[in-house]
Amino acid sequence: MKEIDEAGEALLGRVRIVLSHTTKPGNIGAAVRAMKTMGLRRLLLVRPAQFPHREATFMAAGAADMLDRVEVCDTLDEALHGAALAIALSARRRDLSPVLIDVREAAQAAVSEAAAGADVAFVFGTEISGLSNDEVLRCQRVARIGTSARFSSLNLAASVQVVAHETRYAALGNRARYDSRTPLATHEEKEHFFAALQASLERSAFIDRDKSGRVMERLRRLFGRAMLESQEVNVLRGMLNAWDEAMRKEP
Amino acid sequence: MKEIDEAGEALLGRVRIVLSHTTKPGNIGAAVRAMKTMGLRRLLLVRPAQFPHREATFMAAGAADMLDRVEVCDTLDEALHGAALAIALSARRRDLSPVLIDVREAAQAAVSEAAAGADVAFVFGTEISGLSNDEVLRCQRVARIGTSARFSSLNLAASVQVVAHETRYAALGNRARYDSRTPLATHEEKEHFFAALQASLERSAFIDRDKSGRVMERLRRLFGRAMLESQEVNVLRGMLNAWDEAMRKEP
Repeated sequence: MKEIDEAGEALLGRVRIVLSHTTKPGNIGAAVRAMKTMGLRRLLLVRPAQFPHREATFMAAGAADMLDRVEVCDTLDEALHGAALAIALSARRRDLSPVLIDVREAAQAAVSEAAAGADVAFVFGTEISGLSNDEVLRCQRVARIGTSARFSSLNLAASVQVVAHETRYAALGNRARYDSRTPLATHEEKEHFFAALQASLERSAFIDRDKSGRVMERLRRLFGRAMLESQEVNVLRGMLNAWDEAMRKEP
Repeated sequence: MKEIDEAGEALLGRVRIVLSHTTKPGNIGAAVRAMKTMGLRRLLLVRPAQFPHREATFMAAGAADMLDRVEVCDTLDEALHGAALAIALSARRRDLSPVLIDVREAAQAAVSEAAAGADVAFVFGTEISGLSNDEVLRCQRVARIGTSARFSSLNLAASVQVVAHETRYAALGNRARYDSRTPLATHEEKEHFFAALQASLERSAFIDRDKSGRVMERLRRLFGRAMLESQEVNVLRGMLNAWDEAMRKEP
């Protein structure tokens, strides 16, 4: 899986984040932290109100090293230099807008262009009013993050976090499974356990030998859902043995 | 689509967020804001270090109203009261862990249980060390947000934002399409335009009448990809007319 990981990380290297006219330097720091957690490495700022700034450094926390590599630009055109696909993040409805897609489609489009060797940009506007129409029309797509109709005020760094997460997910997919997990019990281990369980339950008179079917079905369903591990079957068989021993000793 | 929206919002009402032993009150405020943007309404705190606190109110911004409804609990059991599915957020590897799933699977599981009428909880641990083993084992699933191997230090509120976004997306899906869009051009409108375009290009001698095929194929490809709108076809035909008029006037 190492090769897939490396290929995914390489794709993320072609995806840049552009923040236009950011007002609060703390948001730049939080954005850089959000990017770094997701493996995005290139941040460009178009005329930030204040940068560098101690608030940016403070909010970046363990990602403060990335602040040294931030590129500060005079215009959006400069920040988009070399990018083949620019995706504007915008919550506003506009009369004349590029194709409106949702953030997951946007992340998939970004990764698929990056996989074809192109550079891709996600463009975020200023905190209060977002991107201007002129800025949006320099992009080929407008992406929207779905929010509550009652409260859509997503913080700038939170938007960057969602976009970075969706982009990483699109590039690298579901990695949770790769974790080494304790081995599952084999078919035979499970069947030996069920046989021992049934015998023990009959011995205890919890089930009648001739009416054991329904109870055993329920127990098979429960343990089937649980996806028993090999070690767990050992523990369960040990428990059954202990009960069996104890029952034998009873007068 | 209003019915689907309302059904989705109702599902989100059954999903609670639990923050255990939160150290920084600012994170509680930022978490509440993240929740509100995504339509999550119920926050429970297990023994927060400081709450209520002005930092929480400040970071909540337009979501500060939700702070009045936050439930403060003494134990995780209390916070999970009534919940049928509890999903622990954890980045750490553990020897004995509930089933490990990724954040998208977790959101889908949460929404599917909510759709069946159950209450669901996402449980987040303290900022530095996360959830204890004892807390994790009170949950039925452990969810992980995929992060860079080099820097996995996701801020608490940023994690809540990702989980809330994934949950909203699982409940409500892709809403970008629902926006009213200018009507697309019909087949006839497009074919009239292509005919006029070809005639004009032949008149201008840009293409030969007998070799027009390849150029027209390229132009059809370009305009096909662009998904022409009705109004745009009108503008384009107007442009062609103007060129045609100007050509006629040439000596």
